[in-house]
Amino acid sequence: MSGRLTVVGLGPGDDRFVTPEAREALASAEALYGYGPYLDRVPMREGQARNPSGNRVEGNRAQAALAHATEGAHVAMVSGGDPGVFAMAAAVCGEIEDGPEAWRALDVRILPGVTAMLAVAARAGAPLGHDFCAISLSDNLKPWELIERRLDAAATGGFVIAFYNPISTARPWQLGQAFERLGRHLAADTPVIFGRAVGRADEAVTVTTLNKAAETPADMATLIIVGSPETRVIARDGQPPLVYTPRMAATVSA
Amino acid sequence: MSGRLTVVGLGPGDDRFVTPEAREALASAEALYGYGPYLDRVPMREGQARNPSGNRVEGNRAQAALAHATEGAHVAMVSGGDPGVFAMAAAVCGEIEDGPEAWRALDVRILPGVTAMLAVAARAGAPLGHDFCAISLSDNLKPWELIERRLDAAATGGFVIAFYNPISTARPWQLGQAFERLGRHLAADTPVIFGRAVGRADEAVTVTTLNKAAETPADMATLIIVGSPETRVIARDGQPPLVYTPRMAATVSA
Repeated sequence: MSGRLTVVGLGPGDDRFVTPEAREALASAEALYGYGPYLDRVPMREGQARNPSGNRVEGNRAQAALAHATEGAHVAMVSGGDPGVFAMAAAVCGEIEDGPEAWRALDVRILPGVTAMLAVAARAGAPLGHDFCAISLSDNLKPWELIERRLDAAATGGFVIAFYNPISTARPWQLGQAFERLGRHLAADTPVIFGRAVGRADEAVTVTTLNKAAETPADMATLIIVGSPETRVIARDGQPPLVYTPRMAATVSA
Repeated sequence: MSGRLTVVGLGPGDDRFVTPEAREALASAEALYGYGPYLDRVPMREGQARNPSGNRVEGNRAQAALAHATEGAHVAMVSGGDPGVFAMAAAVCGEIEDGPEAWRALDVRILPGVTAMLAVAARAGAPLGHDFCAISLSDNLKPWELIERRLDAAATGGFVIAFYNPISTARPWQLGQAFERLGRHLAADTPVIFGRAVGRADEAVTVTTLNKAAETPADMATLIIVGSPETRVIARDGQPPLVYTPRMAATVSA
Protein backbone atom coordinates (compact mmCIF):
# COMPACT_ATOMS: atom_id res chain seq x y z
CA MET A 1 0.00 0.00 0.00
CA SER A 2 1.51 3.29 -1.02
CA GLY A 3 1.30 6.24 1.29
CA ARG A 4 0.48 9.84 0.67
CA LEU A 5 1.77 13.09 2.10
CA THR A 6 -0.35 16.18 1.46
CA VAL A 7 1.14 19.55 2.35
CA VAL A 8 -1.77 21.84 3.09
CA GLY A 9 -1.82 25.64 3.24
CA LEU A 10 -4.41 27.10 5.65
CA GLY A 11 -4.04 30.67 4.43
CA PRO A 12 -3.92 33.53 6.96
CA GLY A 13 -5.44 33.02 10.40
CA ASP A 14 -9.12 32.77 9.59
CA ASP A 15 -11.20 29.82 8.42
CA ARG A 16 -12.72 31.93 5.66
CA PHE A 17 -9.41 31.65 3.78
CA VAL A 18 -9.18 27.83 3.88
CA THR A 19 -9.93 26.50 0.40
CA PRO A 20 -12.37 23.60 -0.06
CA GLU A 21 -9.47 21.55 -1.45
CA ALA A 22 -7.47 22.09 1.76
CA ARG A 23 -10.49 21.35 3.95
CA GLU A 24 -11.12 18.04 2.18
CA ALA A 25 -7.49 16.97 2.48
CA LEU A 26 -7.46 17.73 6.20
CA ALA A 27 -10.70 15.83 6.74
CA SER A 28 -9.48 12.70 4.97
CA ALA A 29 -6.00 12.50 6.51
CA GLU A 30 -5.23 9.79 9.04
CA ALA A 31 -2.55 11.84 10.76
CA LEU A 32 -1.68 15.54 10.95
CA TYR A 33 1.76 17.05 11.41
CA GLY A 34 2.63 20.71 11.78
CA TYR A 35 3.69 23.62 13.93
CA GLY A 36 1.42 23.54 16.99
CA PRO A 37 -0.49 26.82 16.44
CA TYR A 38 -1.33 25.78 12.86
CA LEU A 39 -2.61 22.38 13.99
CA ASP A 40 -4.78 24.18 16.55
CA ARG A 41 -6.64 25.80 13.64
CA VAL A 42 -7.73 22.40 12.26
CA PRO A 43 -11.02 21.03 13.68
CA MET A 44 -10.57 17.94 15.87
CA ARG A 45 -11.63 14.70 14.23
CA GLU A 46 -12.00 11.35 15.94
CA GLY A 47 -9.36 8.78 15.06
CA GLN A 48 -7.05 11.35 13.48
CA ALA A 49 -3.61 11.47 15.08
CA ARG A 50 -2.14 14.92 15.75
CA ASN A 51 1.59 15.47 15.93
CA PRO A 52 2.36 19.09 16.81
CA SER A 53 5.94 20.31 16.83
CA GLY A 54 7.87 23.50 17.57
CA ASN A 55 8.68 26.35 15.25
CA ARG A 56 12.32 25.54 14.54
CA VAL A 57 12.28 21.85 13.66
CA GLU A 58 11.09 21.91 10.06
CA GLY A 59 13.47 19.18 8.92
CA ASN A 60 12.60 16.80 11.75
CA ARG A 61 8.89 17.46 11.28
CA ALA A 62 9.13 16.71 7.55
CA GLN A 63 11.11 13.51 8.20
CA ALA A 64 8.56 12.26 10.72
CA ALA A 65 5.66 12.89 8.34
CA LEU A 66 7.46 11.24 5.40
CA ALA A 67 8.36 8.19 7.49
CA HIS A 68 4.76 7.90 8.65
CA ALA A 69 3.40 8.15 5.08
CA THR A 70 5.84 5.46 3.97
CA GLU A 71 3.96 3.06 6.28
CA GLY A 72 1.01 3.45 3.93
CA ALA A 73 -0.86 6.18 5.74
CA HIS A 74 -2.42 9.34 4.35
CA VAL A 75 -0.56 12.03 6.25
CA ALA A 76 -1.19 15.77 6.07
CA MET A 77 1.43 18.41 6.85
CA VAL A 78 -0.32 21.58 7.96
CA SER A 79 1.22 24.92 7.01
CA GLY A 80 0.07 28.50 7.44
CA GLY A 81 -0.51 30.71 4.41
CA ASP A 82 0.72 29.01 1.24
CA PRO A 83 3.00 26.04 1.97
CA GLY A 84 5.30 27.00 -0.92
CA VAL A 85 6.08 30.54 0.31
CA PHE A 86 8.65 30.48 3.14
CA ALA A 87 6.84 27.50 4.64
CA MET A 88 6.86 23.68 4.76
CA ALA A 89 6.76 22.58 1.11
CA ALA A 90 10.43 23.28 0.39
CA ALA A 91 11.46 21.57 3.63
CA VAL A 92 9.50 18.44 2.63
CA CYS A 93 11.08 18.43 -0.84
CA GLY A 94 14.54 18.84 0.68
CA GLU A 95 14.05 15.83 2.94
CA ILE A 96 12.75 13.76 0.01
CA GLU A 97 15.88 14.59 -1.99
CA ASP A 98 18.19 13.65 0.89
CA GLY A 99 16.15 10.77 2.32
CA PRO A 100 15.61 7.06 1.55
CA GLU A 101 14.50 5.98 -1.94
CA ALA A 102 11.04 5.06 -0.58
CA TRP A 103 10.28 8.72 0.03
CA ARG A 104 10.53 9.44 -3.71
CA ALA A 105 7.86 6.80 -4.34
CA LEU A 106 5.32 8.54 -2.10
CA ASP A 107 2.29 10.31 -3.52
CA VAL A 108 3.22 13.87 -2.52
CA ARG A 109 0.64 16.60 -3.05
CA ILE A 110 1.07 20.26 -2.25
CA LEU A 111 -2.11 22.32 -1.93
CA PRO A 112 -1.77 26.08 -2.40
CA GLY A 113 -3.25 28.65 -0.08
CA VAL A 114 -3.61 32.41 0.31
CA THR A 115 -0.20 33.67 1.36
CA ALA A 116 0.09 36.59 3.82
CA MET A 117 1.33 38.99 1.15
CA LEU A 118 -1.92 38.63 -0.80
CA ALA A 119 -4.12 39.02 2.27
CA VAL A 120 -2.34 42.14 3.51
CA ALA A 121 -2.32 43.63 0.01
CA ALA A 122 -6.07 43.05 -0.33
CA ARG A 123 -6.77 44.75 2.99
CA ALA A 124 -4.77 47.83 1.93
CA GLY A 125 -6.01 48.08 -1.68
CA ALA A 126 -3.87 46.77 -4.53
CA PRO A 127 -0.23 47.57 -3.72
CA LEU A 128 1.02 44.50 -5.65
CA GLY A 129 -0.68 45.80 -8.80
CA HIS A 130 2.45 45.65 -10.95
CA ASP A 131 5.65 43.60 -10.82
CA PHE A 132 6.57 42.66 -7.26
CA CYS A 133 8.85 40.45 -5.22
CA ALA A 134 8.88 38.67 -1.88
CA ILE A 135 11.96 38.62 0.34
CA SER A 136 12.42 36.88 3.67
CA LEU A 137 14.45 39.10 5.99
CA SER A 138 15.57 36.14 8.05
CA ASP A 139 19.32 35.68 7.87
CA ASN A 140 19.12 32.32 9.63
CA LEU A 141 19.13 30.55 6.25
CA LYS A 142 21.08 32.96 4.07
CA PRO A 143 23.75 35.58 4.67
CA TRP A 144 22.71 39.17 5.26
CA GLU A 145 24.85 40.33 2.32
CA LEU A 146 22.64 38.30 -0.02
CA ILE A 147 19.54 39.96 1.42
CA GLU A 148 21.11 43.37 0.88
CA ARG A 149 21.95 42.48 -2.70
CA ARG A 150 18.33 41.46 -3.29
CA LEU A 151 17.03 44.64 -1.68
CA ASP A 152 19.21 46.69 -4.02
CA ALA A 153 18.10 44.66 -7.06
CA ALA A 154 14.43 44.91 -6.14
CA ALA A 155 14.51 48.65 -5.50
CA THR A 156 16.55 49.58 -8.56
CA GLY A 157 14.36 47.29 -10.68
CA GLY A 158 11.24 49.15 -9.54
CA PHE A 159 9.56 46.16 -7.90
CA VAL A 160 7.04 46.45 -5.10
CA ILE A 161 8.62 44.50 -2.23
CA ALA A 162 6.97 42.25 0.37
CA PHE A 163 8.95 41.35 3.49
CA TYR A 164 8.31 38.01 5.18
CA ASN A 165 9.84 37.22 8.60
CA PRO A 166 10.72 40.90 9.10
CA ILE A 167 11.85 40.81 12.71
CA SER A 168 12.13 38.63 15.81
CA THR A 169 13.76 38.83 19.22
CA ALA A 170 16.78 37.01 17.78
CA ARG A 171 16.91 39.32 14.70
CA PRO A 172 16.21 42.81 16.08
CA TRP A 173 18.20 45.05 13.68
CA GLN A 174 17.61 43.54 10.23
CA LEU A 175 14.32 45.30 9.48
CA GLY A 176 15.66 48.76 10.26
CA GLN A 177 18.71 48.04 8.15
CA ALA A 178 16.50 46.91 5.28
CA PHE A 179 14.51 50.16 5.37
CA GLU A 180 17.77 52.14 5.48
CA ARG A 181 19.05 50.18 2.48
CA LEU A 182 15.87 50.79 0.47
CA GLY A 183 16.06 54.48 1.40
CA ARG A 184 19.21 54.73 -0.73
CA HIS A 185 17.08 54.01 -3.80
CA LEU A 186 13.51 55.01 -2.93
CA ALA A 187 11.91 58.35 -1.97
CA ALA A 188 11.23 59.11 1.70
CA ASP A 189 7.48 59.22 1.04
CA THR A 190 7.31 55.77 -0.58
CA PRO A 191 4.21 54.08 0.90
CA VAL A 192 4.84 51.21 3.33
CA ILE A 193 2.12 48.88 4.64
CA PHE A 194 2.37 46.89 7.88
CA GLY A 195 -0.18 44.07 8.11
CA ARG A 196 -0.68 41.76 11.06
CA ALA A 197 -3.12 38.96 11.86
CA VAL A 198 -5.31 39.60 8.82
CA GLY A 199 -8.67 37.92 9.27
CA ARG A 200 -8.28 37.61 13.02
CA ALA A 201 -9.94 39.66 15.76
CA ASP A 202 -6.70 41.57 16.41
CA GLU A 203 -6.09 42.40 12.74
CA ALA A 204 -4.06 45.59 12.26
CA VAL A 205 -3.10 47.24 8.98
CA THR A 206 -1.05 50.45 9.10
CA VAL A 207 -0.03 52.65 6.16
CA THR A 208 3.06 54.79 6.63
CA THR A 209 6.03 56.03 4.59
CA LEU A 210 9.53 54.70 4.17
CA ASN A 211 11.17 57.42 6.28
CA LYS A 212 8.87 56.58 9.21
CA ALA A 213 8.74 52.82 8.71
CA ALA A 214 11.52 51.99 11.16
CA GLU A 215 9.44 53.55 13.98
CA THR A 216 6.39 51.42 13.22
CA PRO A 217 5.93 48.39 15.50
CA ALA A 218 6.41 44.98 13.88
CA ASP A 219 6.88 41.42 15.03
CA MET A 220 7.22 37.90 13.60
CA ALA A 221 3.58 37.86 12.49
CA THR A 222 3.85 41.12 10.54
CA LEU A 223 3.96 41.21 6.75
CA ILE A 224 5.36 44.43 5.29
CA ILE A 225 4.86 45.78 1.76
CA VAL A 226 7.11 48.57 0.48
CA GLY A 227 5.75 50.37 -2.57
CA SER A 228 7.55 51.20 -5.79
CA PRO A 229 7.93 54.73 -7.18
CA GLU A 230 4.58 54.11 -8.92
CA THR A 231 2.61 53.24 -5.75
CA ARG A 232 -0.15 55.71 -4.84
CA VAL A 233 -2.24 56.41 -1.74
CA ILE A 234 -5.89 57.50 -2.06
CA ALA A 235 -7.06 59.39 1.05
CA ARG A 236 -10.70 58.80 2.00
CA ASP A 237 -12.88 60.60 4.55
CA GLY A 238 -13.72 58.40 7.52
CA GLN A 239 -12.15 55.33 5.92
CA PRO A 240 -8.61 53.98 5.74
CA PRO A 241 -6.67 55.01 2.63
CA LEU A 242 -6.46 52.78 -0.42
CA VAL A 243 -2.90 51.97 -1.48
CA TYR A 244 -2.40 50.75 -5.03
CA THR A 245 0.17 50.38 -7.74
CA PRO A 246 -1.16 51.07 -11.25
CA ARG A 247 -0.46 48.41 -13.83
CA MET A 248 0.36 51.16 -16.32
CA ALA A 249 3.93 52.40 -15.81
CA ALA A 250 4.04 56.19 -15.67
CA THR A 251 7.81 56.51 -16.01
CA VAL A 252 10.81 54.51 -17.19
CA SER A 253 13.46 56.31 -15.19
CA ALA A 254 16.43 54.18 -14.24
CA MET B 1 -27.86 54.12 1.73
CA SER B 2 -24.21 53.51 1.07
CA GLY B 3 -23.13 50.99 -1.51
CA ARG B 4 -20.46 48.37 -1.46
CA LEU B 5 -18.08 47.05 -4.10
CA THR B 6 -16.39 43.75 -3.31
CA VAL B 7 -13.58 42.64 -5.59
CA VAL B 8 -13.47 38.86 -5.44
CA GLY B 9 -10.68 36.50 -6.49
CA LEU B 10 -11.85 33.07 -7.66
CA GLY B 11 -8.39 31.50 -7.69
CA PRO B 12 -7.35 29.24 -10.60
CA GLY B 13 -10.05 27.58 -12.67
CA ASP B 14 -11.50 25.11 -10.19
CA ASP B 15 -14.13 25.60 -7.49
CA ARG B 16 -11.91 23.82 -4.96
CA PHE B 17 -9.77 26.97 -4.86
CA VAL B 18 -12.61 29.42 -4.12
CA THR B 19 -12.31 30.52 -0.48
CA PRO B 20 -15.40 30.51 1.77
CA GLU B 21 -15.01 34.28 2.09
CA ALA B 22 -15.21 34.70 -1.69
CA ARG B 23 -18.15 32.32 -1.95
CA GLU B 24 -20.13 34.25 0.66
CA ALA B 25 -19.45 37.58 -1.03
CA LEU B 26 -20.60 36.24 -4.39
CA ALA B 27 -23.75 34.77 -2.87
CA SER B 28 -24.77 38.01 -1.15
CA ALA B 29 -24.07 40.40 -4.05
CA GLU B 30 -27.00 41.99 -5.89
CA ALA B 31 -25.03 42.37 -9.11
CA LEU B 32 -21.91 40.78 -10.58
CA TYR B 33 -19.43 42.39 -12.95
CA GLY B 34 -16.43 40.75 -14.60
CA TYR B 35 -14.75 39.28 -17.62
CA GLY B 36 -17.24 36.85 -19.16
CA PRO B 37 -15.37 33.57 -18.59
CA TYR B 38 -14.85 34.43 -14.90
CA LEU B 39 -18.56 35.21 -14.42
CA ASP B 40 -19.35 31.85 -16.02
CA ARG B 41 -17.59 30.19 -13.09
CA VAL B 42 -20.02 31.73 -10.56
CA PRO B 43 -23.19 29.70 -9.88
CA MET B 44 -26.38 31.36 -11.20
CA ARG B 45 -28.55 32.90 -8.51
CA GLU B 46 -32.07 34.23 -8.97
CA GLY B 47 -32.44 38.00 -8.82
CA GLN B 48 -28.68 38.59 -9.17
CA ALA B 49 -27.81 40.73 -12.19
CA ARG B 50 -24.82 39.61 -14.29
CA ASN B 51 -22.81 42.08 -16.32
CA PRO B 52 -20.13 40.30 -18.32
CA SER B 53 -17.58 42.27 -20.30
CA GLY B 54 -14.65 41.64 -22.64
CA ASN B 55 -11.03 41.12 -21.75
CA ARG B 56 -9.68 44.55 -22.65
CA VAL B 57 -12.10 46.96 -20.98
CA GLU B 58 -10.92 46.89 -17.37
CA GLY B 59 -11.39 50.62 -16.85
CA ASN B 60 -14.92 50.70 -18.25
CA ARG B 61 -15.86 47.59 -16.27
CA ALA B 62 -14.57 49.14 -13.03
CA GLN B 63 -16.42 52.40 -13.74
CA ALA B 64 -19.71 50.60 -14.37
CA ALA B 65 -19.40 48.59 -11.17
CA LEU B 66 -18.48 51.67 -9.10
CA ALA B 67 -21.39 53.68 -10.54
CA HIS B 68 -23.76 50.82 -9.77
CA ALA B 69 -22.50 50.51 -6.17
CA THR B 70 -22.96 54.26 -5.70
CA GLU B 71 -26.70 53.71 -6.18
CA GLY B 72 -26.62 51.81 -2.88
CA ALA B 73 -26.24 48.29 -4.22
CA HIS B 74 -23.88 45.56 -3.11
CA VAL B 75 -21.88 44.88 -6.26
CA ALA B 76 -19.22 42.20 -6.74
CA MET B 77 -16.41 42.44 -9.26
CA VAL B 78 -15.30 38.93 -10.18
CA SER B 79 -11.62 38.34 -10.91
CA GLY B 80 -9.61 35.20 -11.63
CA GLY B 81 -6.76 34.19 -9.34
CA ASP B 82 -6.02 36.90 -6.81
CA PRO B 83 -7.60 40.25 -7.74
CA GLY B 84 -4.51 42.16 -6.62
CA VAL B 85 -2.04 40.32 -8.89
CA PHE B 86 -2.24 41.59 -12.47
CA ALA B 87 -6.03 41.66 -12.17
CA MET B 88 -8.97 43.92 -11.34
CA ALA B 89 -8.15 45.40 -7.90
CA ALA B 90 -5.64 47.96 -9.20
CA ALA B 91 -8.01 48.98 -12.01
CA VAL B 92 -10.79 49.60 -9.48
CA CYS B 93 -8.47 51.66 -7.27
CA GLY B 94 -7.31 53.69 -10.27
CA GLU B 95 -10.90 54.55 -11.21
CA ILE B 96 -11.67 55.52 -7.61
CA GLU B 97 -8.70 57.90 -7.58
CA ASP B 98 -9.73 59.51 -10.87
CA GLY B 99 -13.51 59.34 -10.42
CA PRO B 100 -16.22 61.34 -8.61
CA GLU B 101 -15.94 62.00 -4.87
CA ALA B 102 -18.81 59.58 -4.19
CA TRP B 103 -16.64 56.66 -5.23
CA ARG B 104 -14.22 57.35 -2.35
CA ALA B 105 -17.14 57.06 0.09
CA LEU B 106 -18.01 53.53 -1.05
CA ASP B 107 -17.34 50.51 1.13
CA VAL B 108 -14.68 48.83 -1.04
CA ARG B 109 -13.50 45.35 -0.04
CA ILE B 110 -10.90 43.29 -1.83
CA LEU B 111 -10.90 39.55 -1.11
CA PRO B 112 -7.67 37.67 -1.81
CA GLY B 113 -7.47 34.42 -3.75
CA VAL B 114 -4.95 31.80 -4.81
CA THR B 115 -2.95 33.40 -7.60
CA ALA B 116 -1.75 31.26 -10.55
CA MET B 117 1.89 31.42 -9.45
CA LEU B 118 1.07 29.64 -6.18
CA ALA B 119 -1.07 26.98 -7.86
CA VAL B 120 1.54 26.15 -10.51
CA ALA B 121 4.32 26.14 -7.91
CA ALA B 122 2.36 23.72 -5.72
CA ARG B 123 1.79 21.33 -8.63
CA ALA B 124 5.52 21.28 -9.43
CA GLY B 125 6.84 21.09 -5.85
CA ALA B 126 8.14 24.20 -4.09
CA PRO B 127 10.00 26.29 -6.69
CA LEU B 128 9.12 29.56 -4.89
CA GLY B 129 10.82 28.25 -1.74
CA HIS B 130 13.10 31.24 -1.35
CA ASP B 131 12.93 34.88 -2.45
CA PHE B 132 10.97 35.29 -5.68
CA CYS B 133 9.34 37.85 -7.92
CA ALA B 134 6.44 38.11 -10.34
CA ILE B 135 6.75 39.95 -13.65
CA SER B 136 4.06 40.51 -16.27
CA LEU B 137 5.59 40.17 -19.73
CA SER B 138 2.86 42.28 -21.29
CA ASP B 139 4.28 45.46 -22.78
CA ASN B 140 0.82 46.89 -23.33
CA LEU B 141 1.04 48.79 -20.05
CA LYS B 142 4.76 49.38 -19.71
CA PRO B 143 7.69 49.69 -22.11
CA TRP B 144 9.69 46.58 -23.01
CA GLU B 145 12.90 48.23 -21.80
CA LEU B 146 11.46 48.37 -18.28
CA ILE B 147 10.66 44.65 -18.46
CA GLU B 148 14.23 43.91 -19.56
CA ARG B 149 15.59 46.00 -16.70
CA ARG B 150 13.47 44.00 -14.26
CA LEU B 151 14.55 40.69 -15.78
CA ASP B 152 18.19 41.70 -15.32
CA ALA B 153 17.56 42.82 -11.73
CA ALA B 154 15.68 39.64 -10.85
CA ALA B 155 18.26 37.30 -12.36
CA THR B 156 21.31 39.05 -10.95
CA GLY B 157 19.57 39.28 -7.56
CA GLY B 158 19.08 35.51 -7.54
CA PHE B 159 15.27 35.62 -7.38
CA VAL B 160 13.06 32.83 -8.66
CA ILE B 161 10.92 34.51 -11.34
CA ALA B 162 7.25 33.94 -12.22
CA PHE B 163 6.01 35.23 -15.58
CA TYR B 164 2.38 36.33 -15.89
CA ASN B 165 0.87 37.11 -19.32
CA PRO B 166 3.83 35.46 -21.06
CA ILE B 167 2.58 35.50 -24.64
CA SER B 168 -0.41 36.27 -26.86
CA THR B 169 -1.10 36.54 -30.58
CA ALA B 170 -0.48 40.30 -30.31
CA ARG B 171 2.75 39.74 -28.33
CA PRO B 172 4.47 36.79 -30.01
CA TRP B 173 8.20 37.54 -29.45
CA GLN B 174 8.40 38.86 -25.90
CA LEU B 175 8.61 35.49 -24.15
CA GLY B 176 11.49 34.23 -26.30
CA GLN B 177 13.30 37.49 -25.76
CA ALA B 178 12.79 37.21 -22.01
CA PHE B 179 14.33 33.71 -21.96
CA GLU B 180 17.24 34.99 -24.04
CA ARG B 181 17.72 37.86 -21.62
CA LEU B 182 17.69 35.58 -18.59
CA GLY B 183 20.16 33.28 -20.37
CA ARG B 184 22.75 36.04 -20.10
CA HIS B 185 22.70 35.63 -16.33
CA LEU B 186 21.45 32.09 -15.63
CA ALA B 187 22.83 28.64 -16.52
CA ALA B 188 21.37 26.76 -19.51
CA ASP B 189 20.08 23.99 -17.22
CA THR B 190 18.15 26.33 -14.91
CA PRO B 191 14.78 24.62 -14.30
CA VAL B 192 11.75 26.23 -15.95
CA ILE B 193 8.13 25.24 -15.21
CA PHE B 194 5.21 25.82 -17.59
CA GLY B 195 1.81 25.51 -15.91
CA ARG B 196 -1.54 25.81 -17.61
CA ALA B 197 -5.13 25.41 -16.47
CA VAL B 198 -4.22 24.11 -13.01
CA GLY B 199 -7.23 22.43 -11.40
CA ARG B 200 -9.05 22.01 -14.70
CA ALA B 201 -9.49 18.84 -16.77
CA ASP B 202 -6.90 20.01 -19.28
CA GLU B 203 -4.26 20.86 -16.67
CA ALA B 204 -0.71 20.63 -17.99
CA VAL B 205 2.52 21.18 -16.06
CA THR B 206 5.83 20.79 -17.90
CA VAL B 207 9.33 20.97 -16.42
CA THR B 208 12.12 21.92 -18.81
CA THR B 209 15.36 23.92 -18.77
CA LEU B 210 16.11 27.50 -19.72
CA ASN B 211 17.93 26.59 -22.95
CA LYS B 212 14.88 24.63 -24.14
CA ALA B 213 12.20 26.91 -22.74
CA ALA B 214 11.67 28.91 -25.92
CA GLU B 215 10.59 25.71 -27.73
CA THR B 216 7.96 24.85 -25.12
CA PRO B 217 4.39 25.76 -26.11
CA ALA B 218 2.76 28.56 -24.12
CA ASP B 219 -0.30 30.77 -24.43
CA MET B 220 -2.12 33.50 -22.50
CA ALA B 221 -3.27 31.00 -19.87
CA THR B 222 0.25 29.76 -19.11
CA LEU B 223 2.13 30.72 -15.97
CA ILE B 224 5.88 30.21 -16.17
CA ILE B 225 8.35 29.89 -13.28
CA VAL B 226 12.08 30.25 -13.94
CA GLY B 227 14.27 28.88 -11.17
CA SER B 228 17.22 30.54 -9.48
CA PRO B 229 20.74 29.06 -9.34
CA GLU B 230 19.58 27.29 -6.15
CA THR B 231 16.55 25.55 -7.69
CA ARG B 232 16.75 21.75 -7.78
CA VAL B 233 14.89 18.97 -9.61
CA ILE B 234 14.24 15.62 -7.90
CA ALA B 235 13.70 12.84 -10.44
CA ARG B 236 11.18 10.17 -9.41
CA ASP B 237 10.39 6.80 -11.01
CA GLY B 238 6.94 6.77 -12.58
CA GLN B 239 6.06 10.19 -11.20
CA PRO B 240 6.70 13.73 -12.38
CA PRO B 241 9.81 15.36 -10.89
CA LEU B 242 9.63 17.61 -7.85
CA VAL B 243 11.10 21.07 -8.42
CA TYR B 244 12.05 23.03 -5.34
CA THR B 245 14.21 25.89 -4.16
CA PRO B 246 15.78 25.32 -0.74
CA ARG B 247 15.28 28.09 1.79
CA MET B 248 18.90 27.67 2.84
CA ALA B 249 21.19 29.52 0.43
CA ALA B 250 24.08 27.29 -0.67
CA THR B 251 26.18 30.05 -2.23
CA VAL B 252 26.52 33.81 -2.17
CA SER B 253 28.11 34.26 -5.57
CA ALA B 254 27.40 37.59 -7.26
